Amino acid sequence: MIKIAIDAMGGDFGVTTTVPAAMEAVKRFKDIEIVLVGDETKINPLLTNKERITISHTTEVLDMGEHDPVKAIRSNKEASMVKAMYLGRNKEVDAVVSSGPTQCLIIGAHLIIRRIKLMQRVALCPIIPSFDGKGKLLLDVGANVELKPEHYHEFAVAGSIIAHEILGFDNPKVGLINIGSEKGKGREVDNLAYDILEQSKLINFCGNVEPNEVLTNDVRVIVSDGFTGNMVLKTTEGTAKAMAKMLKQEIKASMGGKIGYLFMRKNLKRFAKRLDSSEVGGAMIVGVESPVIKAHGNSDSHAFYNAIRQAREMVLKDVIGKLKEDLAKNSGDTSEAN
Amino acid sequence: MIKIAIDAMGGDFGVTTTVPAAMEAVKRFKDIEIVLVGDETKINPLLTNKERITISHTTEVLDMGEHDPVKAIRSNKEASMVKAMYLGRNKEVDAVVSSGPTQCLIIGAHLIIRRIKLMQRVALCPIIPSFDGKGKLLLDVGANVELKPEHYHEFAVAGSIIAHEILGFDNPKVGLINIGSEKGKGREVDNLAYDILEQSKLINFCGNVEPNEVLTNDVRVIVSDGFTGNMVLKTTEGTAKAMAKMLKQEIKASMGGKIGYLFMRKNLKRFAKRLDSSEVGGAMIVGVESPVIKAHGNSDSHAFYNAIRQAREMVLKDVIGKLKEDLAKNSGDTSEAN
Repeated sequence: MIKIAIDAMGGDFGVTTTVPAAMEAVKRFKDIEIVLVGDETKINPLLTNKERITISHTTEVLDMGEHDPVKAIRSNKEASMVKAMYLGRNKEVDAVVSSGPTQCLIIGAHLIIRRIKLMQRVALCPIIPSFDGKGKLLLDVGANVELKPEHYHEFAVAGSIIAHEILGFDNPKVGLINIGSEKGKGREVDNLAYDILEQSKLINFCGNVEPNEVLTNDVRVIVSDGFTGNMVLKTTEGTAKAMAKMLKQEIKASMGGKIGYLFMRKNLKRFAKRLDSSEVGGAMIVGVESPVIKAHGNSDSHAFYNAIRQAREMVLKDVIGKLKEDLAKNSGDTSEAN
Repeated sequence: MIKIAIDAMGGDFGVTTTVPAAMEAVKRFKDIEIVLVGDETKINPLLTNKERITISHTTEVLDMGEHDPVKAIRSNKEASMVKAMYLGRNKEVDAVVSSGPTQCLIIGAHLIIRRIKLMQRVALCPIIPSFDGKGKLLLDVGANVELKPEHYHEFAVAGSIIAHEILGFDNPKVGLINIGSEKGKGREVDNLAYDILEQSKLINFCGNVEPNEVLTNDVRVIVSDGFTGNMVLKTTEGTAKAMAKMLKQEIKASMGGKIGYLFMRKNLKRFAKRLDSSEVGGAMIVGVESPVIKAHGNSDSHAFYNAIRQAREMVLKDVIGKLKEDLAKNSGDTSEAN
């Protein structure tokens, strides 16, 4: 049995999305058990099927606008997210899913579940939509504002395993996000990272990736410092949103547009769905001892279900075990090379 | 008379776009004279109207894929772009327009036209499309991979003047691109830059801007290091392109879509135009002694005409004179503060 703890109170909608998502997940997957961490008086009325679902009761919840994540994690041990992570730390569950405040989840994963010894940094890693619909990974998008060159390699190794196990790509291509495609472009850190990535035997490095190709090329793991990755991710989201808004506005601007819409409504819906991140699951917190999945704050129950599905898969495929193996190989390589 | 030198050979299409653009510009603006720098045997057949247009002959041209811009500028004094910039340096023209290789133009502007004394850095500053159609400035997008905190302020001052004089905004809002909206977010350099921007009396600073709001908010000057700005710009371009491609694909995927298209063709064209940068002109190289405009490498003659129009306006409004005045005020302020 795969045991998954869910921060039932997190996110913009709390129990109204997490409880239905949990029921959907246990119905779909016979190999999982779920612990809903949250207020039983709020959960119980919604929990119409308790098969393989238990409740770990708490009434506290971290605020979505939490400004001091370290303090929040340390001083709110009864908060649903924090409690869920302690279940992970104590091996009572195999994975944790939350749509609560991102920075709290990252810091909490770090402080409570703990970093894998051979990872020096933890990364936030979403599956981002791609033109071909198969998805790709971008990491880090917000756990570290700056990185040292060697950290890019850790992220590349972790991303390669996830791209293989979760997205299903053999020998996935790895790229370094940069302002130019040729070697030698970018900042000093990018150049040093490039050299390390190029020499690694653990990954299939294919050089720099410019941000205008992120959605369309066949690179499956894009490594980045958290500041830059966050820029790329949020710019993509913002542009997609602005364009959708413009398209709507232009279509509504004339009778022809409105009539045309009646004919191509389904087409436009498929179009909207192609860039919809709720289809692909949540962002993974990579580098800690258990899978921790961050579902979007405004996840509906289907998006949250997808995050649970992803957590299950991370456990089932033993992504963390494989990551540890590869990192050990690498640290072995390094000591030999020295 | 406003004199503008045009690198007639630059860009993907050379004389076939620059010469018609020059003729369109002199026809439209009676106060400009143009010097076409390039091969007269190629220019002359296209130059059907020589009114206020002269040719400065040269057959050489910088390669669009030039890898060593400094060497290229120093060793190719006869190249059309370089020659155009010497005209600027010697005050034979008031502004320079080129669609040649960007890094060469930046370095050339720096080395030949020279930096304004009180600017420590030069920035590449495009006018980016915005949801309201009024445009905004993002600088730097590629002249500096890294900046010191005080450089952000120089760019904010320059951007504010351009947003006022060229885009027509009174007291334009200035924002610092960052991964979060609250003060204290981002890297150390962002925080130090924030403090300087916040204290400045020369600009209307409104805090951090997250990249997902760049296209839709009312901030008109967004300051950034060149690495980050390049990420935002290229991600926006890439997302817009990928989405347009997806939309086309979905529309073509069914008969309903194709019929719908017939009704809303005009609407979709207006939609496409709203994110089209060729309407707004070129990117400015900010911080040198003359206006230098970088038209997109694949500019058609209309886009190139818009870059010439923009060069004229930069001269007409004495943007550089005003920038020098403001920088002098600031250096006065600083010495008083010390």
